[in-house]
Amino acid sequence: MDARTGLPVVGMVGGGQLARMTHQAAIALGQSLKVLAAAPDDGAALVAPDTEIGLHTDLDALRRFAKGCDVVTFDHEHVPTEYIRTLAAEGVKLFPGADALVAAQDKQVMRERLTELGAPIPRWAPVGTLADLVDFAQGETVIVKTARGGYDGRGVFVVSDPAEVVPMIDAGTRLIVEEKVDLVRELSALVARSPFGQVAAYPVVETVQCDGICVEVIAPAPGLSAERALEAQQLAIRIATELGVVGLLAVELFETPTGIIVNELAMRPHNSGHWTIEGARTSQFEQHLRAVLDYPMGDTTLTAPWVVMANVLGGPDGGISVDERIHHLFAEDPAAKIHLYGKKVRPGRKIGHVTAMGSDLAEVRARARRAAQWLEEGR
Amino acid sequence: MDARTGLPVVGMVGGGQLARMTHQAAIALGQSLKVLAAAPDDGAALVAPDTEIGLHTDLDALRRFAKGCDVVTFDHEHVPTEYIRTLAAEGVKLFPGADALVAAQDKQVMRERLTELGAPIPRWAPVGTLADLVDFAQGETVIVKTARGGYDGRGVFVVSDPAEVVPMIDAGTRLIVEEKVDLVRELSALVARSPFGQVAAYPVVETVQCDGICVEVIAPAPGLSAERALEAQQLAIRIATELGVVGLLAVELFETPTGIIVNELAMRPHNSGHWTIEGARTSQFEQHLRAVLDYPMGDTTLTAPWVVMANVLGGPDGGISVDERIHHLFAEDPAAKIHLYGKKVRPGRKIGHVTAMGSDLAEVRARARRAAQWLEEGR
Repeated sequence: MDARTGLPVVGMVGGGQLARMTHQAAIALGQSLKVLAAAPDDGAALVAPDTEIGLHTDLDALRRFAKGCDVVTFDHEHVPTEYIRTLAAEGVKLFPGADALVAAQDKQVMRERLTELGAPIPRWAPVGTLADLVDFAQGETVIVKTARGGYDGRGVFVVSDPAEVVPMIDAGTRLIVEEKVDLVRELSALVARSPFGQVAAYPVVETVQCDGICVEVIAPAPGLSAERALEAQQLAIRIATELGVVGLLAVELFETPTGIIVNELAMRPHNSGHWTIEGARTSQFEQHLRAVLDYPMGDTTLTAPWVVMANVLGGPDGGISVDERIHHLFAEDPAAKIHLYGKKVRPGRKIGHVTAMGSDLAEVRARARRAAQWLEEGR
Repeated sequence: MDARTGLPVVGMVGGGQLARMTHQAAIALGQSLKVLAAAPDDGAALVAPDTEIGLHTDLDALRRFAKGCDVVTFDHEHVPTEYIRTLAAEGVKLFPGADALVAAQDKQVMRERLTELGAPIPRWAPVGTLADLVDFAQGETVIVKTARGGYDGRGVFVVSDPAEVVPMIDAGTRLIVEEKVDLVRELSALVARSPFGQVAAYPVVETVQCDGICVEVIAPAPGLSAERALEAQQLAIRIATELGVVGLLAVELFETPTGIIVNELAMRPHNSGHWTIEGARTSQFEQHLRAVLDYPMGDTTLTAPWVVMANVLGGPDGGISVDERIHHLFAEDPAAKIHLYGKKVRPGRKIGHVTAMGSDLAEVRARARRAAQWLEEGR
């Protein structure tokens, strides 16, 4: 408990943009997010005073950090599972817990759990040897993923010749292989679950990827039937409940000609939920805090018929400053909402996002894309 | 400029809830608000890392603070006008400037300026002697105000016997007297103006006062004719422009049977604009930052047909904790939005506000009041 306010202290391991935006939400709840950041210029460290500097791979740093927290949660999935178990055994309250989180940390565990649940997933197998892979592929192009450490398209390989994977197998990298799915588009079903067991579901959204990175999110997913939307929400609720997730769960889905299947799980605020800051009555960041604090969940209703979020990547070097780009964007579109993460611009680096809302989908999408382009390229 | 982000640094003198909520808005713009707080447990100091501790009445503290800022603005109106002039002469960029701000700091100057502008105001006069007051009152009940230092009903006196005021006159307190207005209700017209001269106006709202403190704000003001709403907005725009205000200007208005007249001016984010955080596409806090940074103004459109804000005061001592009250409120109304200011609860102290939105005014008002009551009394 924070003696200054009488309110609980939530600590977040990792100081990136998710912690940065969670701090904004914590302020409204009367709190100040405690952050364990890797460096003083991490996005959250720049804006949250109760920041400690330390690595998520340093058990002692995690221990010191947890001392001042009523509950500890995560900005990313990279804290070693065994450290989470150790801290929990020492009495630290961590959400999501290790048993749940490991299904988002380890793609093999995730596929095993989803198989047990009977959730719709691609055909898959663990890969121990080249023979495993050749057997599975039967000459077709397949998807090979590292079990650990993937993020934003890293650790995912489209493999037409199994021999390409030999160096990873030889290096002892734990891998799984999945069939290449006949993909119509990608969706995301975001839910939040509290320790009490209450689950709140956001409207299902469409996510548009480019080079494995999410570039655009459309809420709600255009043309998605009410039945399929409900099916996706119920699937996400069931996964959250069965895995015992506390906090947010993003279920990334493939829509295929015959139905939906689960691609990935994330257990934290997620890029596919950034639209909720202005586009839903309760932002995913507030919802995550409510969940880990066991507060009742907030209203997930949309605030406009269509909400589109576009990620802003660092554009080419040179040209006008980001400050000038903001000037031009705000002059062009007074209703565009921007979120910059306090990062130095590097080509291709995710430096922020923009959100547009309205009643005409084509116009809202065009506005969001134009706004991102202004911030990326200054024109 | 912040070397870490390449973006400008805004400093705010005063570390109360207005600075606290402005910091939230600054984060989205890629910035971190720099705060000069009187104490480390001020609401903004608890959540903003770039906080210096110092008094707004200490010129050297102001000087040191201003060194790291591209522009300095204010959480309250209590910085001595001559210090603002001194800093400006030393090259500090301050918004609003002293010539504008003095009309919000000094009620006599405010009445003089509004008289010059021909703005509708109550009949008024400066009070130098008891004879001045007796002359003005002519046996009627009048309103006596201290020229400086009033806030939330302090410094305002309903006077039926002029002799009551003698102690203040004898103490040399500078006073003005105004007629007691035949009041239908109170309104507020909030605008923001940039150095370039762009002005954006929010919908005119009704403010409900109790014991001189604003307890409820209804956006838009119910039953206000389009003509009178436009008149109020145009009046606020004219005052902002003629006084050279940069940043927000709240024009507190009396609605009388015959029209609107100006009660007070405030040049900062204002309690009558807290509803904009969720209720308008651009919050007043973001708008104030955009104005002082000379960014183009943001969209002021409502996000729901009706938005009602209710202030939360510290309730009676004892009973359940604020944390438990939040639990109960969120269970009762998942769509209520809360904003707590990080203050210790004291009876009657403004510790936060709540916002409700919807399409049925009576229901939205009832929800906002019930939410405030839950946080105040825990029932």
